[in-house]
Amino acid sequence: MRKNLGSKPYIFPQPVLIIGTYDENGKANAMNAAWGGIVGMHELIVDLGSHKTTDNLAVKKAFTVSIADAAHTVACDYVGIASGRKVADKMEKAGFTTVKSDFVDAPIINELPLALECELTEILPGGKYLGKIINVSADESILGDDGDVSIEKLFPIIFDAAHSGYYRLGDKVGQAFSDGKKLM
Amino acid sequence: MRKNLGSKPYIFPQPVLIIGTYDENGKANAMNAAWGGIVGMHELIVDLGSHKTTDNLAVKKAFTVSIADAAHTVACDYVGIASGRKVADKMEKAGFTTVKSDFVDAPIINELPLALECELTEILPGGKYLGKIINVSADESILGDDGDVSIEKLFPIIFDAAHSGYYRLGDKVGQAFSDGKKLM
Repeated sequence: MRKNLGSKPYIFPQPVLIIGTYDENGKANAMNAAWGGIVGMHELIVDLGSHKTTDNLAVKKAFTVSIADAAHTVACDYVGIASGRKVADKMEKAGFTTVKSDFVDAPIINELPLALECELTEILPGGKYLGKIINVSADESILGDDGDVSIEKLFPIIFDAAHSGYYRLGDKVGQAFSDGKKLM
Repeated sequence: MRKNLGSKPYIFPQPVLIIGTYDENGKANAMNAAWGGIVGMHELIVDLGSHKTTDNLAVKKAFTVSIADAAHTVACDYVGIASGRKVADKMEKAGFTTVKSDFVDAPIINELPLALECELTEILPGGKYLGKIINVSADESILGDDGDVSIEKLFPIIFDAAHSGYYRLGDKVGQAFSDGKKLM
């Protein structure tokens, strides 16, 4: 028996994206966003509303997207509830330090091991920001023997859209483009 | 030490979205997509390329997005590798049966317990489909005591963009809009 719940933003899982930007003086900020995703081999989108981050994007037209990991859940949640418009030392309180990306005019958060470095390409109605992924930088600690990202080392956290929980990644249960061949 | 990996579609986690559509004769189809996300309280986006699904969307301008769950990993992977343009009995092979949504002209897959029922609102360059979420329907089996979706009952699978693995949801590690208050 199915029940109708109305119109809700219920994709599961959702990512926890930490958006890094500089203001006009080169001061770094970060915010937390779950509404977004990949929309092409070199493109992503993120819905941001109105924040210090969007002020910064209007000036710099560049941003990073770091992936929140289980080791930094508290800091990643904090940058989602404290406003960069009101809290001058937000990054310090989060315990985040930054270096400038070699590819775009935006900060990489040293403590988060994976960052997508993006140029802002378009702002769609409703505050949807489209970015071109110029580079992905990863700390060596999350790379597997093949030199690529190991999701089991990265340990991204997962956002529960229904009850706002954060979850860990569980065990591997299958292999895409492979398991389905059993039915062919 | 960080390493540059080039431009890659590396958001973690990514969802496994099963897109349901009808063709001009009312025949149901489904495909698997990981590139997309929520972009507003009532909006989602999904990048689809060119498929039977996009043929159908041109005609019906409506679709459902079902969330792939751990119990149907093989079937959900199958609909991503078999083409509805070539395989006439794709839904039967997947073991999927459907009923028409009460809200949009698209099929709900009975076997998958959560579906977002959407109207197509816009196609952006590159095959990005924007949808307005008209209703969410959920099987009672995934609802908690509060009548809302329980992610721990839904058990969505998680796509690993780097190595194409499917993963289970793990344990809860935090609470959004709450844990970060420790740093305020």
